[in-house]
Amino acid sequence: MDVMEAKKTRIFKFGANSADGDSDMKNLLGGKGANLAEMSAIGIPVPPGFTISTEVCTEYNELGEDALKELLKNDLRDAVASVEGIMGAKFGNDTDPLLLSVRSGARVSMPGMMDTVLNLGLNDVSVVGLAEKSGNERFAWDSYRRFIQMYGSVVLGLKPESKDDMDPFEEVIDHLKDKREITMDTDFSVQDLKDLVYDFKDIVKKGTGHDFPTDPWEQLWGSIIAVFNSWNGNRAMYYRAMHGYPADWGTAVNVQAMVFGNMGDTSGTGVCFTRDAGTGEDQFNGEYLINAQGEDVVSGVRTPQQITKIGSERWARLAKIDEAERAANYPSLEELMPEIYKELDSYQQQLEDHYRNMQDMEFTIQDGKLWILQTRNGKRTGAAMVKIAMDLLDDGMINEEEAMLLIEPYKLDELLHPVFDPKAIKKANIIAQGLPASPGAATGQIVFFAEDADRFRNTILIRMETSPEDLEGMNKARGILTARGGMTSHAAVVARGIGKCCISGAGALKIDYKNRKFTVDGKEFHEGEWLSLNGSTGNIIEGKVATKDPELSGEFAQLMKLSDKFSKVKVRTNADTPKEALLAREFGAEGIGLTRTEHMFFESGRINVMREMILAPHEKGRRRALRRLLPMQREDFEGIFEAMEGLPVTIRLLDPPLHEFVPHQLATQKELAEEMHISLMAVKNKVAELEEFNPMLGHRGCRLGNTYPEITEMQARAIIEAALNLKAKGITVKPEIMIPLVGTVAEFDAQEKVIRTTAEQIFKERKDTIEYLVGTMIEVPRAAVIAEKIAEKADFFSFGTNDLTQMTYGYSRDDADKFMPIYLKKGILNEDPFKVIDREGVGQLVKMATDKGREVKPKLKVGICGEHGGDPSSVEFFCSIGLNYVSCSPFRVPIARISSAQANIKFGC
Amino acid sequence: MDVMEAKKTRIFKFGANSADGDSDMKNLLGGKGANLAEMSAIGIPVPPGFTISTEVCTEYNELGEDALKELLKNDLRDAVASVEGIMGAKFGNDTDPLLLSVRSGARVSMPGMMDTVLNLGLNDVSVVGLAEKSGNERFAWDSYRRFIQMYGSVVLGLKPESKDDMDPFEEVIDHLKDKREITMDTDFSVQDLKDLVYDFKDIVKKGTGHDFPTDPWEQLWGSIIAVFNSWNGNRAMYYRAMHGYPADWGTAVNVQAMVFGNMGDTSGTGVCFTRDAGTGEDQFNGEYLINAQGEDVVSGVRTPQQITKIGSERWARLAKIDEAERAANYPSLEELMPEIYKELDSYQQQLEDHYRNMQDMEFTIQDGKLWILQTRNGKRTGAAMVKIAMDLLDDGMINEEEAMLLIEPYKLDELLHPVFDPKAIKKANIIAQGLPASPGAATGQIVFFAEDADRFRNTILIRMETSPEDLEGMNKARGILTARGGMTSHAAVVARGIGKCCISGAGALKIDYKNRKFTVDGKEFHEGEWLSLNGSTGNIIEGKVATKDPELSGEFAQLMKLSDKFSKVKVRTNADTPKEALLAREFGAEGIGLTRTEHMFFESGRINVMREMILAPHEKGRRRALRRLLPMQREDFEGIFEAMEGLPVTIRLLDPPLHEFVPHQLATQKELAEEMHISLMAVKNKVAELEEFNPMLGHRGCRLGNTYPEITEMQARAIIEAALNLKAKGITVKPEIMIPLVGTVAEFDAQEKVIRTTAEQIFKERKDTIEYLVGTMIEVPRAAVIAEKIAEKADFFSFGTNDLTQMTYGYSRDDADKFMPIYLKKGILNEDPFKVIDREGVGQLVKMATDKGREVKPKLKVGICGEHGGDPSSVEFFCSIGLNYVSCSPFRVPIARISSAQANIKFGC
Repeated sequence: MDVMEAKKTRIFKFGANSADGDSDMKNLLGGKGANLAEMSAIGIPVPPGFTISTEVCTEYNELGEDALKELLKNDLRDAVASVEGIMGAKFGNDTDPLLLSVRSGARVSMPGMMDTVLNLGLNDVSVVGLAEKSGNERFAWDSYRRFIQMYGSVVLGLKPESKDDMDPFEEVIDHLKDKREITMDTDFSVQDLKDLVYDFKDIVKKGTGHDFPTDPWEQLWGSIIAVFNSWNGNRAMYYRAMHGYPADWGTAVNVQAMVFGNMGDTSGTGVCFTRDAGTGEDQFNGEYLINAQGEDVVSGVRTPQQITKIGSERWARLAKIDEAERAANYPSLEELMPEIYKELDSYQQQLEDHYRNMQDMEFTIQDGKLWILQTRNGKRTGAAMVKIAMDLLDDGMINEEEAMLLIEPYKLDELLHPVFDPKAIKKANIIAQGLPASPGAATGQIVFFAEDADRFRNTILIRMETSPEDLEGMNKARGILTARGGMTSHAAVVARGIGKCCISGAGALKIDYKNRKFTVDGKEFHEGEWLSLNGSTGNIIEGKVATKDPELSGEFAQLMKLSDKFSKVKVRTNADTPKEALLAREFGAEGIGLTRTEHMFFESGRINVMREMILAPHEKGRRRALRRLLPMQREDFEGIFEAMEGLPVTIRLLDPPLHEFVPHQLATQKELAEEMHISLMAVKNKVAELEEFNPMLGHRGCRLGNTYPEITEMQARAIIEAALNLKAKGITVKPEIMIPLVGTVAEFDAQEKVIRTTAEQIFKERKDTIEYLVGTMIEVPRAAVIAEKIAEKADFFSFGTNDLTQMTYGYSRDDADKFMPIYLKKGILNEDPFKVIDREGVGQLVKMATDKGREVKPKLKVGICGEHGGDPSSVEFFCSIGLNYVSCSPFRVPIARISSAQANIKFGC
Repeated sequence: MDVMEAKKTRIFKFGANSADGDSDMKNLLGGKGANLAEMSAIGIPVPPGFTISTEVCTEYNELGEDALKELLKNDLRDAVASVEGIMGAKFGNDTDPLLLSVRSGARVSMPGMMDTVLNLGLNDVSVVGLAEKSGNERFAWDSYRRFIQMYGSVVLGLKPESKDDMDPFEEVIDHLKDKREITMDTDFSVQDLKDLVYDFKDIVKKGTGHDFPTDPWEQLWGSIIAVFNSWNGNRAMYYRAMHGYPADWGTAVNVQAMVFGNMGDTSGTGVCFTRDAGTGEDQFNGEYLINAQGEDVVSGVRTPQQITKIGSERWARLAKIDEAERAANYPSLEELMPEIYKELDSYQQQLEDHYRNMQDMEFTIQDGKLWILQTRNGKRTGAAMVKIAMDLLDDGMINEEEAMLLIEPYKLDELLHPVFDPKAIKKANIIAQGLPASPGAATGQIVFFAEDADRFRNTILIRMETSPEDLEGMNKARGILTARGGMTSHAAVVARGIGKCCISGAGALKIDYKNRKFTVDGKEFHEGEWLSLNGSTGNIIEGKVATKDPELSGEFAQLMKLSDKFSKVKVRTNADTPKEALLAREFGAEGIGLTRTEHMFFESGRINVMREMILAPHEKGRRRALRRLLPMQREDFEGIFEAMEGLPVTIRLLDPPLHEFVPHQLATQKELAEEMHISLMAVKNKVAELEEFNPMLGHRGCRLGNTYPEITEMQARAIIEAALNLKAKGITVKPEIMIPLVGTVAEFDAQEKVIRTTAEQIFKERKDTIEYLVGTMIEVPRAAVIAEKIAEKADFFSFGTNDLTQMTYGYSRDDADKFMPIYLKKGILNEDPFKVIDREGVGQLVKMATDKGREVKPKLKVGICGEHGGDPSSVEFFCSIGLNYVSCSPFRVPIARISSAQANIKFGC
């Protein structure tokens, strides 16, 4: 071994207010090791220990076990001695044993991918010492049997070979439970635990041919090697491959003293937050229990007590417990252990100052000594997130950029939609789960048909799937629940647009329209019964749950204003009505990126005119119906233009297959036939004729406009006339006419010609003109491939990333629920590409098309109006490749604005 | 005007065995002008005339009409004088008037896009001269009224403004017919024609404010200007845009003497071929009529006579006319005008030698003088095409490359499939038309259900669309006819694979399964009635039509052998059975590019095992059924491997959605439920569960293999075991396992792992190994976009251009018939992209993926196995971008081989 090798530091100690490393050394010490070193170095009392560096992992892989032991031997003894010194306990000692934990720690968190061993150092002798020291024989033996089980499994490899086999240790436990006629681990007596230890050791003997190692050093070596080995285990390799982490990173090993909060009345354990995670209020708070382990605090078996006196008093008021009883039975830590509290309070301040963010800490008091086990940035509600960021900014602790980056854009949803009352929701019974299709909380009485949506005061509309015919009912219902369809199904898209709570794809629901009921797990729910939906989580809850309406705080306004300072990429909205447009404008939308003209045709009084147009056997009949539709569309556009005065409004021409407009139920078909004075058979024939095998790839988009140019003509006329009418009133209008589903230049040319010819004619008729643009959706892969040719003609591009994702992947978004969940579970997909833009594939096409388009038209305006326009990660991507705007549903506008600002801060775009 | 301008040659004369231009001057003289010059220069007596060059067109566009007249005036007079000299007639003369034609002529043929004026030079005086000279007053006046009508429309613009308006001249004609109570133009008397001339001149006067020009020079100028103007007319501009021809090419104007074959008994007209267009035999042949115009020969009003004596005698034998009557009433030209015949015969030899190809000539004899009006390469049957090419090659008239390029690959179809007896088909009554989905002719009795396909000796199977369940019946029927579906529908693909005649998408058929009949245009056709199909044209014919089986000639073998000398890009076949594989091998396939494993599951005895697998609620049940399918699949593969001994065989893993395998009819569902001892409801539920909105974008391809890896495992095992079994028999097997519908690297990885793990296990079991490849289809656009990443893992790429076209365009091939016909008609698409590869879009993706793949793996094997593999233009493209092979259905293999050879000759690829 050469001299340099010998001198290299392989083990980095921490504890007692000092450390060999710090938080910048993540590559060498792993994330966990670096953080423990950092805390220790700034004077936080973390249980002492040491980190074996990631380089040693590499050395081990190269040199093997024996050489590694030789390499580390002296340093390891020295490091353990140092821990013993700080803890005042001895490793392997039979009266006051030092117990250790051994954990992996790569440079990034790989939760559950590698192995951990706890309670290391126990054997038949030291278990007795632990029992005496803790005064808790049960605890000592339970720890011991758990240690053997964990060690046996992790280090000695005694685990089931396949999913179908039993774990050998669990098999013994089950057997003993049967014998004792008990069901819970906690029902075991001390003798039972001792019997288990005996049996477990027997399993080890039989399984390995050797006795269970009683030498703590042998235990320690075994565990270290096991952690290193787990770096190349199947789970870890798979996880690395999935995330693209290289194998040569290696893992560090963290060895740390175990501390116990259950060693009597001078011990305890708790969790605390530097600020209120619910409201963001700057108030230290948390819960603890005396003589308890971490899991006792969260398990609910004992009622945890409050850390601060003020918190304790507030808790008692809510729980209706009087002050005397509170002080006697549920004293705060502040009252019970004032010195410890004072120490804890100083650490929480120190840690928040240090990490400049709200902290979530775990601590344990062992025998009157406070240990901080962990600190991390605390999870918080959307409201707390905004308040904390603005407070920290106002206090000068962070700058504006840092404040912006503290925002998780998705969480703003919580601020914009109703939420369940936190107390009411605790008792909720979740009966099933679906996709969180549109956020918010809703509670109401069940109905199964759109026309029943106003049958009760508050209704939940339940459908297999929704169709445009259900639009009115969806508007009236409190929430929408569908058994089929994904995140971009009709129900989901519409619900997000109108800010309505929606859960889609809840496959467990068996809907029985005829009997107006649904069944889930054998239980029936009938029309009129109460149901609650959490559109943010996908939870479907039995019964009525109280909801709270959102209130937008001053901090929210402050944040949105701040975002404007940074965001360069504009945010528009997808809006089909003046109401939606106005709402989005309030949320800061800078224009409309997508108006779906077809939604307007579904209103009653219009749908039958539309149907008349579709049923007409020739152009003349279509034109007759279109003449009746014209004034209606013109009025729609006038309303939207007025709402968006001065801002650009992109209007997409008719897009969906005509099949969506015709009635599919016999009764409605009969009605239509009577109204139109034609035979029922004629209606049925037309409906059948319009049916398609793959409607997504069928007769829709500009294929309609190119086969029936008179439709385009009517829509162009409605837009241009509406614009001129408003111009006459002194209102500035900037119409952008968008042709959907263009795949060839000729398709665009033919539609553009109809639009421009119509406009010119109107200009002549009115003796007035208006500026307008004619652009195209880029949503068919072919359009992206030939974008440079389309750009020669089109005034703007708008990516329809829903369709583009469908066609680029070949995934029907309505059918993907057949395989997508399995793909996500198996890691074949990391994300649902309909939710988060697929940068590698679809994103590459978006970038390619943008670049090609700008090659021929450098100032080409390029936006995106698919559902991805409201997803933060996707917005970041679109900003980074130079799009001019993103467009999303009104309630997503604030989220997109923040995302745009963050992208600017991160990438200068 | 500068001196250089004045010297430029603007008018190029031809006639009397000399010419100012030749056939290389197409850009300057246009195609027609250059060819007329060429013929004249080599001594062929074409009616004299002159060509005004394309440059003059440009000059006209720049300078305008007056300047043009000044520029051309002298040259034009000179050129007309030259024509007068040769013809011995005078332009505008009242006793022997020279009549002229004025035609456009761009450098490429643009049929019908520009204007023509005939019989120019007639007026009230010269019409009398013409009547006298021809001895046919009716002809003279009819020519005159036609001239006024044509000139009025083309030059003076007197035509209907919209489709709905009447042509003013036709209106007068209709009016006169009503008055005379006649229906045909030929029923007009001379006086009627004179009246029409009077009325027509009146229309001109009223429409233009001027008298009809009687000055022939004014007529000539007007016509020249009109032709130049038509270059920038709507039709021509549209045509240019569609084909990408630049506007600055301009058109030439050809002015030529008119000659007439109806000037008495020393006049005549005819068409002739230098070889037999039906058989290719080297025998001069053709038809003529004395005292007739061109249209008389083809109209059938008079029986045309044969040119040669030998032809005439053969004709008489077939028509059962005895020699005396033949010689008296139908003498050959050879007998009737031996001198003229001799002259014609020498020209036909000269022209074939000159153009080195079989010629189709038109001639006119005017007053004993022979004029050759036109020669062009003659249309011919597939058999004639092959024979002529090989004969010309054997005679040393052309070299091997030229012989190859004389082949139109598509025409080989005629040689490989039955055709209708030419005589029988003449009387055929076409009742409807569909898409020519699979070539050949078939005649048989109508059946409507696959299981009835052997109900009669010869059957025509008629379905709305076919499904894999119909496979057996399709095999038994003579021909297949579907009312729905496109060129790549199930029926079309299967039919081409088995070389069966098929017409798809015949939308006019209303099928009534219940009553076993179909209706078309109100007429009913019942089961058992006779019907005939022409799969090469799409014609559906009433009744029984005799067919002829194909016979492959020695020349065909010679041609195919020759093609091997050139073709570099290999041709494989798509084959699912040993029979297909052997057939394709006979046709020269160099391997299998696509075996669709799912087709094997539809055989009786298998389909229910497959259904059992699908209906199994868990993996265990699926594995049980798969164990039963394994030996069947293994046997299939053994058969195919044996048939293709020594050649590579690409096997695609299960691809279609499971929905295609389950029964959809109640009766079959009941049967299955009974057989599997489960409830009908369970079967119905599963069938419903498998239903998809857009099955093309649903749970299929490797998405099946990745959700049910046990299917992939079974298929991999069947392939590898089959290969090892044959290896043991000394048969060389080269399996290439192909994963369908891959869109992400992880999808490929997961499937590859299953395959390789299975193979390794078998190698261990058998203690033997075999070489095999694991590659992927590239058919999802995303796969093309990330091809460089997939190439790192895959051994080969095979483009599935059917699906790639579907997804790149967003066209469902089963639904595209809703808009594709309109798109083709409007010129929004030039070709059906499912038939001919779309080079601009889909082709760009194919090229991009190939290039990206070879960037990381320069030797990557890349092929294509979509339907385009049998289309000549597509094969040419695939060759040009460097693919290693194309794969097509067996009957297309010869076509692809020729196409590959031609691509090599043209592009060296």
